[in-house]
Amino acid sequence: MTRPLSVAVAGLGTVGAGVLTVLRDNAELVAARAGRPIAVTAISARDRSRDRGVPLGGLRWYDDPVALAADPAVDVVVEVIGGSEGPARELVRAALEQRKPVATANKALMAVHGAELAALAERAGVPLAFEAAVAGGIPVIKALREGLAANRISRVAGILNGTCNYILTVMRERGREFAEVLADAQKLGYAEADPSFDVDGIDAAHKLAILAALAFGRPVAFEAVHVEGIRAISALDIGFAGEFGYRIKLLGIARQTEGGIEARVHPCMVPQASPLAGVDGVFNAVVAEGDFVGRVMLEGRGAGAGPTASAVVADLIDIARGRTTPVWGAASGALSDAPSVPMSEHFGAYYLRLMVVDRPGVIADVTAVLRDSGISLESMLQRGRAPGESVPVVLVTHETNEAAMRAALLRIAALDAVLEAPTLIRIEPA
Amino acid sequence: MTRPLSVAVAGLGTVGAGVLTVLRDNAELVAARAGRPIAVTAISARDRSRDRGVPLGGLRWYDDPVALAADPAVDVVVEVIGGSEGPARELVRAALEQRKPVATANKALMAVHGAELAALAERAGVPLAFEAAVAGGIPVIKALREGLAANRISRVAGILNGTCNYILTVMRERGREFAEVLADAQKLGYAEADPSFDVDGIDAAHKLAILAALAFGRPVAFEAVHVEGIRAISALDIGFAGEFGYRIKLLGIARQTEGGIEARVHPCMVPQASPLAGVDGVFNAVVAEGDFVGRVMLEGRGAGAGPTASAVVADLIDIARGRTTPVWGAASGALSDAPSVPMSEHFGAYYLRLMVVDRPGVIADVTAVLRDSGISLESMLQRGRAPGESVPVVLVTHETNEAAMRAALLRIAALDAVLEAPTLIRIEPA
Repeated sequence: MTRPLSVAVAGLGTVGAGVLTVLRDNAELVAARAGRPIAVTAISARDRSRDRGVPLGGLRWYDDPVALAADPAVDVVVEVIGGSEGPARELVRAALEQRKPVATANKALMAVHGAELAALAERAGVPLAFEAAVAGGIPVIKALREGLAANRISRVAGILNGTCNYILTVMRERGREFAEVLADAQKLGYAEADPSFDVDGIDAAHKLAILAALAFGRPVAFEAVHVEGIRAISALDIGFAGEFGYRIKLLGIARQTEGGIEARVHPCMVPQASPLAGVDGVFNAVVAEGDFVGRVMLEGRGAGAGPTASAVVADLIDIARGRTTPVWGAASGALSDAPSVPMSEHFGAYYLRLMVVDRPGVIADVTAVLRDSGISLESMLQRGRAPGESVPVVLVTHETNEAAMRAALLRIAALDAVLEAPTLIRIEPA
Repeated sequence: MTRPLSVAVAGLGTVGAGVLTVLRDNAELVAARAGRPIAVTAISARDRSRDRGVPLGGLRWYDDPVALAADPAVDVVVEVIGGSEGPARELVRAALEQRKPVATANKALMAVHGAELAALAERAGVPLAFEAAVAGGIPVIKALREGLAANRISRVAGILNGTCNYILTVMRERGREFAEVLADAQKLGYAEADPSFDVDGIDAAHKLAILAALAFGRPVAFEAVHVEGIRAISALDIGFAGEFGYRIKLLGIARQTEGGIEARVHPCMVPQASPLAGVDGVFNAVVAEGDFVGRVMLEGRGAGAGPTASAVVADLIDIARGRTTPVWGAASGALSDAPSVPMSEHFGAYYLRLMVVDRPGVIADVTAVLRDSGISLESMLQRGRAPGESVPVVLVTHETNEAAMRAALLRIAALDAVLEAPTLIRIEPA
């Protein structure tokens, strides 16, 4: 058999250790599929003494990850340090400059610096692979970039953050509030000590930016993604969602509209019968709609050592076999220049929940604002009677424009009888 | 831009015409993703006069499809004639012998002659691509062969025949019998005039043989697949399935067991909450379970001109980019020699429905047979009372061995009070 492919792994957290484990446990099978053995020969991590559950003997150890790129015995660099800046970025740049293929699990890096890195990879003529950056072990990058490559994609949507999906699932199943469920998730290790990247939607936005670039064949544009997280979702709204036949999910959605590409991450009400509504817990799922293939859905585990390492090693097998694809699906010069559409131009239906004083005339005032803004109502629900006290009122609108909705919302929030900041959740067909 | 990839298409049925349509409608996008234009230059079909909805002017026309392989201006051959023997097989052989890459949608050919053709492709050093052979537009071949390549797969299961899934879905939704729904499906064009390939499970078995070879990295073995169709499924059983919390689906399942690889296509009772239970109508879905990735599911349209052509053109883009994979995921010499396990060694739970005379002692006789065969019952249901008349009795067993179950079934069928051939449906965890 041919000489082994010599791999350097930068970062020995759960994913890095997972990559070593897969390559050790499935060595024979990986060699058969790759056409040659794949062997880790060099590593870099901060702490040399920590036990990571995998033997590290015989490997060249570098304190500086960037030095891995210069090791002449290294064929391929795996970057699983994370973060859009610092050593991760420097290492990937250095490796590509050395004409070494790279496999990374780093969504932040690809979302923020993906265009620059693609140019580097193109110049060097080497692959920059990142299957693990989106939806863990689900081969969604490969599906969009190769499997569905014959299609014009009109929409890609997904549950891209397992932490948020887990929290929303538990909130629904147990009728509990966000803060409590988050605290429990942190104890269980499903959420980070600083949960902001996950619960504020940033992680999902990184992934959506990558999916949108691939689906629509244009340069990655993280800054154009509209981002909202799930902190404002309450058990009350999850209950109302159920009554209206919806589930609340944090979705990333990118869509081809007449004006360009719309890309957004926010909580959505999705019909209970839609495929994404049934994806619960830590699972991820991505739906793509193509002009010839129709709707395709992929579902699986979006995080964790095993699934993520599975994707990294799949990239290494591709590299070993010489299977390469331009980073964003086509050469930089062949990418589309479709503009991004700002969120203010979004068109869709809305769920609006107010806490109002239960007294005559309040509903008339609220609906008058909507009427004056040209927004028509599909349904309205007022639950309970408590004269003079606070009661929830739910309004579901027909499709309307985001800017109009936002303006109406400001006027509604300013009404005397409206007691809290209103909750606005967009309704997504699926 | 580089010279176009010159493609010959053999067979201009719905799929062949679909390939021409995709390559025409999405020409620019396909060229960007393939790195060069992809142009059909030669075709072969029986009837020159039929209108196929796509312009055929300027294309070289061959009456004999096999002649396409010898056309020196043809770079790649697309085979969408169908059938495991005859011109399809001859053309693919001839093209590979001419060292021309082939893309085929032909599941029968790949299931029956896939080992021989893989050897030819390997000798010639050219790709033999067949994404369209399984699950239409869903990139399941690519997912198994590349995306999940780092994993040891323990089980692959799927809804692989849209016609059967459509019939079973309508039977359940409308409470109708197989023969009526089949007749309607034929009128609507969802079932062939001769429906045997679909409803007797042969089409699904071709696809399962392909999936099993890829999942377990061993030579394709169609003859080892146990095959049963859906003709014996009655509205009565579908109703009982619902009462027990199941849905009836025709599944193809391949599993690594202690003794080797088990591969089978038959109607299954699957729990209503399992992912495959929710896949209705003409949709297909495939679930794969890997040691690191966990469970991954892919779902979409498994047939039709658009989805199938989407897969064929994806293969052409791979070929244009030079992305190749050994036919069965690894070189012939590196494939596993895991034996096939006969159906008699299957181990699982069973649903058994009898029509018996409603008189004392019948249940005792039936359960005595099961007891004597070492088969234990999980539950039993007798519906209605009609002394001296025929009533249904349903028995659900705990896990047991197929051979024991079959032997018990013969003895039960021979009982005086058992009026019709019993219905046996295997219960599948999901």
